[in-house]
Amino acid sequence: MKIIEKIKRPIYEEMAFFEFKFKKAMATKVPLLNRITYYIVRRKGKQMRPMFVFLIAKMTSGGEITEKTYRGASIIELIHTATLVHDDVVDESYQRRGFFSINALWKNKIAVLVGDFLLSKGLLLSIEHDDFDILKIISKTVREMSEGELLQIEKARKLDITEEVYFEVIRQKTATLISACCGIGAASVGRSQEEIDKMTLFGEDIGIAFQIKDDLFDYTDVRIGKPTGIDIKEKKMTLPLIYALQNSNSKEKKWLINAIKNHNEDKKYIAKIIDFVKEKGGLEYATEKMKLYQQKALSILEEYPESIYKESLETMVNYVISRKV
Amino acid sequence: MKIIEKIKRPIYEEMAFFEFKFKKAMATKVPLLNRITYYIVRRKGKQMRPMFVFLIAKMTSGGEITEKTYRGASIIELIHTATLVHDDVVDESYQRRGFFSINALWKNKIAVLVGDFLLSKGLLLSIEHDDFDILKIISKTVREMSEGELLQIEKARKLDITEEVYFEVIRQKTATLISACCGIGAASVGRSQEEIDKMTLFGEDIGIAFQIKDDLFDYTDVRIGKPTGIDIKEKKMTLPLIYALQNSNSKEKKWLINAIKNHNEDKKYIAKIIDFVKEKGGLEYATEKMKLYQQKALSILEEYPESIYKESLETMVNYVISRKV
Repeated sequence: MKIIEKIKRPIYEEMAFFEFKFKKAMATKVPLLNRITYYIVRRKGKQMRPMFVFLIAKMTSGGEITEKTYRGASIIELIHTATLVHDDVVDESYQRRGFFSINALWKNKIAVLVGDFLLSKGLLLSIEHDDFDILKIISKTVREMSEGELLQIEKARKLDITEEVYFEVIRQKTATLISACCGIGAASVGRSQEEIDKMTLFGEDIGIAFQIKDDLFDYTDVRIGKPTGIDIKEKKMTLPLIYALQNSNSKEKKWLINAIKNHNEDKKYIAKIIDFVKEKGGLEYATEKMKLYQQKALSILEEYPESIYKESLETMVNYVISRKV
Repeated sequence: MKIIEKIKRPIYEEMAFFEFKFKKAMATKVPLLNRITYYIVRRKGKQMRPMFVFLIAKMTSGGEITEKTYRGASIIELIHTATLVHDDVVDESYQRRGFFSINALWKNKIAVLVGDFLLSKGLLLSIEHDDFDILKIISKTVREMSEGELLQIEKARKLDITEEVYFEVIRQKTATLISACCGIGAASVGRSQEEIDKMTLFGEDIGIAFQIKDDLFDYTDVRIGKPTGIDIKEKKMTLPLIYALQNSNSKEKKWLINAIKNHNEDKKYIAKIIDFVKEKGGLEYATEKMKLYQQKALSILEEYPESIYKESLETMVNYVISRKV
């Protein structure tokens, strides 16, 4: 977590104040709901998303943030938390960040309702303050995230998925929320639409790099010193595999498709598939693409004068593709 | 359904045009999602909620509706559909309106995502057209509905629930959406805030009467010619039971609490509980309260000059408390 602390340094006070405001934003008169949101706050993650909001707001404005920046960060975190709570229901996960999930402790019914509540609380927060620009970004994001997940369910297990569809899925599913953080950061300090769009693009590039990194963990997870192979087991087609398949001759293709289709739960086959993808250069190709998006993000930052905020954002971009978890 | 057709008569064309627009509002580029929304449109219900939007808009404006009225009706129906899809997931229901539920046909994961998608589509529709007044009503409604459901989970199975909490639960859980329909109807034709508030109250009164009627079905369901007893089985405390409990001596209370707590799945006990509630006058009391809200709603309508729209709304109010399903 040391690197996260370093990134956070120029916005240390703001993040502390944000936590206070975030708690307040979730308050309700339903006691059960307050117990659950209290629990949610305790098991908080790295809070990368609010960090993006504050850093972008500060970099683009030269250090000034507003009440709207705090609201923007709270809205993002409310929406993000809502999707995590719903995700755990749909994936039947019983743990998150070392804590039990909401559905594990309070059952599915309550978890779905808590997610809906957090979602509407986020939207209300912006409506009550007439933050319509933030609202536009957020609603588009919620739609794209659910569309992206559904697109993934429909396409990502099809063996003929193209690289184009893969990128569309990860753009909608993962990149759109980080993209929203950056757009909202700039919007919250009254930057021009052109600059908001530029920051949105910056966030999208990071988000895509972030997801490729996630997909690469399936092949090389340094924490456990070996590949996880979970995506292969679930027949989820990610970039390394898509590349390998595209660059196989018909005999290899036949073998690979049969291996994924019929032997996806066999450890030996998973190991063979991983080796095959490596031989075909699938990891190098995905890493190259990831670095391309990293570079795209960094080049957007280059347009800005040096500042502690810009420096933190650069560290963040590099952390996204070098992280070990 | 004859009475519904009669109510619908003055807005027949609008409802047909609305259906066309509603379908369009759900369109997406994700094929799976389009198949699901196509299915949702096919199994449509009575569409009482859009009917309220159109009838109120027409009554308050003297017959004029706008594009915003259509959007308001679409938004309401999108939100309502989203909550039904989520409800079926949380209640593990596999049927709705004689069709299979989305979770039954496509699994929970997809159903939760489809609900989120419909919710955000509804919000986007109003955001894209700068309908911020509608947006305010809708977001408040979504929050109140999830809060109301959670309040019900927390309180409605407690045997010491008060009448006050019961009314708070049904106001938030059921009445708020009908209330939103009526408020949006008036807002969509540019009526004053005072009139919008009045229509919101009108909707709330109907919503409360509607839910009391629903709760009464547990004691007298004319379709099956006998009580259903489902709420008692689920230990859900509704008005007739709350009244009976409040009007019992300590010996009766002890028996009733024991019966609900420990014998709620025993048919003989359920029958005895129902008889006890009837003896105590619980049904008369609930019916009286229901009629009180009916009268409150009708008296708001009285302020308006006679019109075919007002007449339909009166028929609707009376249908709500006399309906057999």
